[in-house]
Amino acid sequence: MNYPNKKKTFAKNEIDYSNRGMNLESDINNSNKYYLENDIAIIYKKPTPVKVVKVDYNKRINTKITEAYYEIPSTTDYNGIYKGKYIDFEAKETKCKTSFSLNNIHKHQIKHLIDVERHGGISFLIIRFVNLNETFLLQTRFLKQFLDTSNRKSIPYEYIKSNGFIIEEGYYPRLNYIKNLDSLYFEVIK
Amino acid sequence: MNYPNKKKTFAKNEIDYSNRGMNLESDINNSNKYYLENDIAIIYKKPTPVKVVKVDYNKRINTKITEAYYEIPSTTDYNGIYKGKYIDFEAKETKCKTSFSLNNIHKHQIKHLIDVERHGGISFLIIRFVNLNETFLLQTRFLKQFLDTSNRKSIPYEYIKSNGFIIEEGYYPRLNYIKNLDSLYFEVIK
Repeated sequence: MNYPNKKKTFAKNEIDYSNRGMNLESDINNSNKYYLENDIAIIYKKPTPVKVVKVDYNKRINTKITEAYYEIPSTTDYNGIYKGKYIDFEAKETKCKTSFSLNNIHKHQIKHLIDVERHGGISFLIIRFVNLNETFLLQTRFLKQFLDTSNRKSIPYEYIKSNGFIIEEGYYPRLNYIKNLDSLYFEVIK
Repeated sequence: MNYPNKKKTFAKNEIDYSNRGMNLESDINNSNKYYLENDIAIIYKKPTPVKVVKVDYNKRINTKITEAYYEIPSTTDYNGIYKGKYIDFEAKETKCKTSFSLNNIHKHQIKHLIDVERHGGISFLIIRFVNLNETFLLQTRFLKQFLDTSNRKSIPYEYIKSNGFIIEEGYYPRLNYIKNLDSLYFEVIK
């Protein structure tokens, strides 16, 4: 979820030379915009669910919400359609270099990904190892395989590297995960 | 969108004998819950998008949003998967008995429905005529056909009746729209 961050203060002469200031969510939104504009795929991030408690109806133009709280999402953050197929995924980044903690994903989100695959959709995780500059696509089948065979509370980097696929990074789209889907699901059999 | 309603006050002895107090959104959520629990389809309503302006981080347990505004959704309210197919729709009710005003749907939502159909998904409108006790499923192709051939700003009831399909109402699921999809898209050809 994209909670608004507390203001970050930078030293005056600190210059951000890289694109690393862009987080994973921005990168995926950028890619989805590219896919949409080029009529390749229709994939959106779902809005963060908010429980509204109080509203001020006196504002004539636009109802002002004066008390609300973030809620836990029912499903994953992203879904849509590509080449007629239902696409569903969750994206997470980790600062850890050796593993991806399963605390990053809610149990019902994992169940949702598995359900989607069972219903004939394409579901996966996008996992970014921030400090390794690597972003992987891990299909739900491998997430499930890990959960079925291990009691560990985090997926080792090596498991993700062996079973997942590196997502190509660029300018636009910043994360070309559709290219991975092409080779995994839509490759023409010769 | 499900804006919180102003409190309704009822006369003390007023009893609501019917289910009519339940609105279309509740009926669809009820049906989606049924489909999910019975492992028939995975379809969710997207959260209403909210632009958060101010938050109070002093609350230890749960971040309190103190200023926010409703935003126009980018897409339709409902999407998901059924029998491997991508499903996408918008649901609206009208009190008018003779037509459905196109002011009820944003232009970009209509574009979205048409795009989804073009990409191989199943997209449609669910339109309830509250005062006729009738709820229709109108496929995007017929919405598009109307827009392509008419300059009217509302779709006549007769057009919806001729080209749409009545959705069966019951207790659980309250609106069995999957039954319509079955006969429209998944009927076994004998």
